[in-house]
Amino acid sequence: MEEQESLDQFLDRAGRDFLAHISLDCVVFGFHAGQLKILLLKMKHEDLLALPGGFVMKDETMEQAAIRVLRERTGVENVFLQQYHVFSDVLRSDPARRPLIVERLGIPPEKAQFLAQRFISVGFYALVEFSRVVPRPDLLSETCDWYSLEDCGPLILDHGRILETALTELRTQLNYQPVGYNLLPRKFTLPELQKLYEAILGRSLDRRNFQRKIFSYGIVRALDEKRTGVAHKAPNLYSWDLRKYQQALKAGLGGGW
Amino acid sequence: MEEQESLDQFLDRAGRDFLAHISLDCVVFGFHAGQLKILLLKMKHEDLLALPGGFVMKDETMEQAAIRVLRERTGVENVFLQQYHVFSDVLRSDPARRPLIVERLGIPPEKAQFLAQRFISVGFYALVEFSRVVPRPDLLSETCDWYSLEDCGPLILDHGRILETALTELRTQLNYQPVGYNLLPRKFTLPELQKLYEAILGRSLDRRNFQRKIFSYGIVRALDEKRTGVAHKAPNLYSWDLRKYQQALKAGLGGGW
Repeated sequence: MEEQESLDQFLDRAGRDFLAHISLDCVVFGFHAGQLKILLLKMKHEDLLALPGGFVMKDETMEQAAIRVLRERTGVENVFLQQYHVFSDVLRSDPARRPLIVERLGIPPEKAQFLAQRFISVGFYALVEFSRVVPRPDLLSETCDWYSLEDCGPLILDHGRILETALTELRTQLNYQPVGYNLLPRKFTLPELQKLYEAILGRSLDRRNFQRKIFSYGIVRALDEKRTGVAHKAPNLYSWDLRKYQQALKAGLGGGW
Repeated sequence: MEEQESLDQFLDRAGRDFLAHISLDCVVFGFHAGQLKILLLKMKHEDLLALPGGFVMKDETMEQAAIRVLRERTGVENVFLQQYHVFSDVLRSDPARRPLIVERLGIPPEKAQFLAQRFISVGFYALVEFSRVVPRPDLLSETCDWYSLEDCGPLILDHGRILETALTELRTQLNYQPVGYNLLPRKFTLPELQKLYEAILGRSLDRRNFQRKIFSYGIVRALDEKRTGVAHKAPNLYSWDLRKYQQALKAGLGGGW
């Protein structure tokens, strides 16, 4: 298990086990209490937060590497994961930044070679059900936790751009990928579903139009159950009709929301 | 100019100038005589065709590298170019294949190191106006030319998959990117526009529905000109209303065709 490995051991094997110049960053989206959340690391000796990421082993595909990184940070497997953009700015940030991070981590120059090189990073976004995740920091970080978009502040290096691009991609993919299916628990209320769409799109939607559209596709079905333990009138629970959902996505849900 | 460089000179500097392990492949789409065309290379000593591709210089972004490769193969700059997927299968083909290609090219093993390594390839697709392109082979190929999808046969390594994925992406992007604007000449007839959509989608469309949809978006405008030199009744010429086209694409052209 990589978790038991020391940073020293990791640096010793990094150049041997991983491909040079190629990294990946994961934007892990979750949905909780009506808010879109992302999983971020608080790196040691750094004030800014960072996206979870990693490197590609010599016998791994990009996807296998991303699945491994996600499993290590979240404890979860079988996650919706999609590569969406390659970030390859030559500096990918202030040129002094990466060596500075390495230095602050107390890594001696002769061990810093692997981490200090130029990386071209493949961006992945993941959609996970919030409650399944047990966040775990990596070797370079103190904490790993969920943040709302408003609370995370500027991110390290070019991670802010990587996050922004993922969000744009998620908005585009809302009509083509089973976003709701992956972010919501199996049973949900219509207001919860609408809140999810609103959180992703960053604007409020008309309740009637939203429900008309959702019902017109036949992609959710009412369960014979109500949400219990809520103050107001207990709202009905719904579940996805996955077959119809997939069919509808194939053609694209179409139009704007 | 790289064109005047010998393969020998290229191999001498490749490991010094390019990043290890990262390549790019370009699916260059053109439209001619009612057919979707792609630009392919006939490699020396190989029967199968290959996509144009290249490597990333140490001071280049992926996009700059792709623009350079495209300029070298087509003579064209300012081209619509979009990265769409990273291909990272560990073998990316029969494991014996890449060394065999290197061997057939007559490259001695001590010079083959750069070409024989594992490459993770970033797929780009380009949309170019057919008539602007002057195809030019690279150092490893004899010819560079346009092929229709039906005529190209199986491609080398995993290039068939890279092409298929680009085609799928192009179909999805038809409602979100100015595909028609980039593939057609500035002035076109409605049958030409419909043929382009049909070529991309791989199926025929109803003429009336197609025209109704195109007109409903207001993205083309009739010119006071007709196509001359055609046998039948001279059809009217149209041009894009780029502002409306961009607006319509922003929301997505929506629905199916």
